[in-house]
Amino acid sequence: MHTVGIIGGGQLGRMLIQAGIDFNLSVKVLDPDPNAPCKDLCSQFVQGSLTDYDTVYNFGKGLDIVTIEIENVNTDALAKLEEEGVRVFPQPSIIKLIQDKRSQKLFYQQSGIPTADFILTETKEEVIDHLDFLPAVHKLGKAGYDGRGVQKIESQGDVYKAFDAPGVLEKMIDFEKEISVIVARSLSGDVSVFPVVELVFDPVYNLVDYLIAPADITDEQAEEAQRIAVSVIKELKMVGLLAVEMFLTREGTILVNEVAPRPHNSGHQTIKANYTSQYEQHLRAILKLPFGATTQTVPSAMVNLLGEIGYEGPAKYDGIDKVLSMEGAHIHLYGKENTKPYRKMGHITLLDPDRKKLIEKVRYVKENLKVIS
Amino acid sequence: MHTVGIIGGGQLGRMLIQAGIDFNLSVKVLDPDPNAPCKDLCSQFVQGSLTDYDTVYNFGKGLDIVTIEIENVNTDALAKLEEEGVRVFPQPSIIKLIQDKRSQKLFYQQSGIPTADFILTETKEEVIDHLDFLPAVHKLGKAGYDGRGVQKIESQGDVYKAFDAPGVLEKMIDFEKEISVIVARSLSGDVSVFPVVELVFDPVYNLVDYLIAPADITDEQAEEAQRIAVSVIKELKMVGLLAVEMFLTREGTILVNEVAPRPHNSGHQTIKANYTSQYEQHLRAILKLPFGATTQTVPSAMVNLLGEIGYEGPAKYDGIDKVLSMEGAHIHLYGKENTKPYRKMGHITLLDPDRKKLIEKVRYVKENLKVIS
Repeated sequence: MHTVGIIGGGQLGRMLIQAGIDFNLSVKVLDPDPNAPCKDLCSQFVQGSLTDYDTVYNFGKGLDIVTIEIENVNTDALAKLEEEGVRVFPQPSIIKLIQDKRSQKLFYQQSGIPTADFILTETKEEVIDHLDFLPAVHKLGKAGYDGRGVQKIESQGDVYKAFDAPGVLEKMIDFEKEISVIVARSLSGDVSVFPVVELVFDPVYNLVDYLIAPADITDEQAEEAQRIAVSVIKELKMVGLLAVEMFLTREGTILVNEVAPRPHNSGHQTIKANYTSQYEQHLRAILKLPFGATTQTVPSAMVNLLGEIGYEGPAKYDGIDKVLSMEGAHIHLYGKENTKPYRKMGHITLLDPDRKKLIEKVRYVKENLKVIS
Repeated sequence: MHTVGIIGGGQLGRMLIQAGIDFNLSVKVLDPDPNAPCKDLCSQFVQGSLTDYDTVYNFGKGLDIVTIEIENVNTDALAKLEEEGVRVFPQPSIIKLIQDKRSQKLFYQQSGIPTADFILTETKEEVIDHLDFLPAVHKLGKAGYDGRGVQKIESQGDVYKAFDAPGVLEKMIDFEKEISVIVARSLSGDVSVFPVVELVFDPVYNLVDYLIAPADITDEQAEEAQRIAVSVIKELKMVGLLAVEMFLTREGTILVNEVAPRPHNSGHQTIKANYTSQYEQHLRAILKLPFGATTQTVPSAMVNLLGEIGYEGPAKYDGIDKVLSMEGAHIHLYGKENTKPYRKMGHITLLDPDRKKLIEKVRYVKENLKVIS
């Protein structure tokens, strides 16, 4: 039996543990929240900071394998563990590269990965120097997450929103669709790729509204998106799972937006709809097992269950009966005791051979299921 | 959050907990083995006997819901809990009826459920009085499990094998196939039925060798098998999941062999191959949630991983890489530290649209994957 340490004990760690049951894993989890979603599902739970060197180092020391479920972790401690013989996947140097959106963009540029044009900026004032580059998106180099650390700078009037810290000013892309491809790579260099998913964003909160898989794009576009995702993980030489978020522009070009070196929100539906889930695939990668087939058996959609505005406290799921009475509706709750506005409390996966019906089911979920308190 | 108690902490409980993660369940488990497969996956683990009144009663007192993963439990204690307001599913009276193969057979007879002819016997001598009824199978009324408590009595020379205890002598059925249908019923009387699976037994050890779903039978036979399984659970008025094992005779008749009021070995493949797994369906039943669709997305086979003869001790899984490199092969290990001959250590689910290829994959698993020590 392998002992696997997971840095981060949120929903991604929880679903990773759920998949890990099938592999007889003994799991140790680190999270700052004493009631983290993984708390009751692991052999050992350590409460502590993910960004503190000593905490992360002491957590990982003596484990066979360490992995992450969030990229905002202390990579120096992980590098030290790697040096001492712990198998850390994804590799700490790659997590570090991805943590900083500036180094991520430079990596794409240097590796010939198509991505939106960009300018590195150190201060808010530097943004003002590039008015001719607008409309653009200003991203904070570090610590941006789920829409935080991202500002649209459409014209001069928006420049006040720019970050007065190292960032990257990216040409705004007039995209047709946002898509995501999850890839995985083994230590021996084998690569596995999942079907393309389409992300539909909530324009106000910049959170995924729902996703649908497979994406409604041409076969050529799908192949191109998969080819790009594979080239990203190959160029990184990363071991583990990588989610590659991309734009399909109105001209039909595909550009990499950003990547996440871990199981991803855009892969939740693989639990129900694909031969192998993203979680199982990540485990196969880090346990040195052959990859599973990524074949999708039925079209699917995924809706995040976000805490309703106006409610804060112990969570209740209103409308769960209505939603679960739909054919092909499955709930995944994250074990979070308290809800608050826009907190990710769970997700619903919908299965239906008919894409139109899938979207109707998405609407039904959004109208009928509310996370309140 | 519901607190659910599970009587029994083996692999069925383990997979039930795995499915329960999605419903935010807090799970408490009772098992006599301090290292039971569920040990590390529940909020509370109690070591104790499943058949002792006080142990079972004290375990269940104060819980919202109690269920079972094995039927050899103290039903008097469960009945007392039910009386005190704990929701016990399946109902204790039904577990009690099913525990005794004699009352099971009487129930089929009284309810007009087709089953093999039988004679109740109290002693071995009574079997001798019925030589004209041979060939038959003699089954111990209580405590038979996985082939224990079952003897073939083909002719007078086999009578010495008969049990000298209350039993049932069943007419031996010259069957074409053994099949199983899993059904579930809610408190409000809704019934859900899974596709028919075909069980291929190891003739020597009377254990499932592999199963394949859907069964290779006619549509009419499949409908008849499903109709019978539905009538069994309706007649029982049982809440929860029921596996109905049946014979398809050479004449094309379907007869109920026996039932299990819980998730069952013949439903493992539903985790990977069906919209809703048997475990999720059982939870939906006992949590008063609507049933999920039982649609099968791709044909599948399931192979039990049994401890190899000649090995006893800490388990190793030899050949796991070979097997997992096959498209559509997925492993489910049960977290048992030690192997011994014929112990169920895990299972492999195989997915393939082509039935012939599925069977080839079964052969490959059986030849290449060995549980040794």
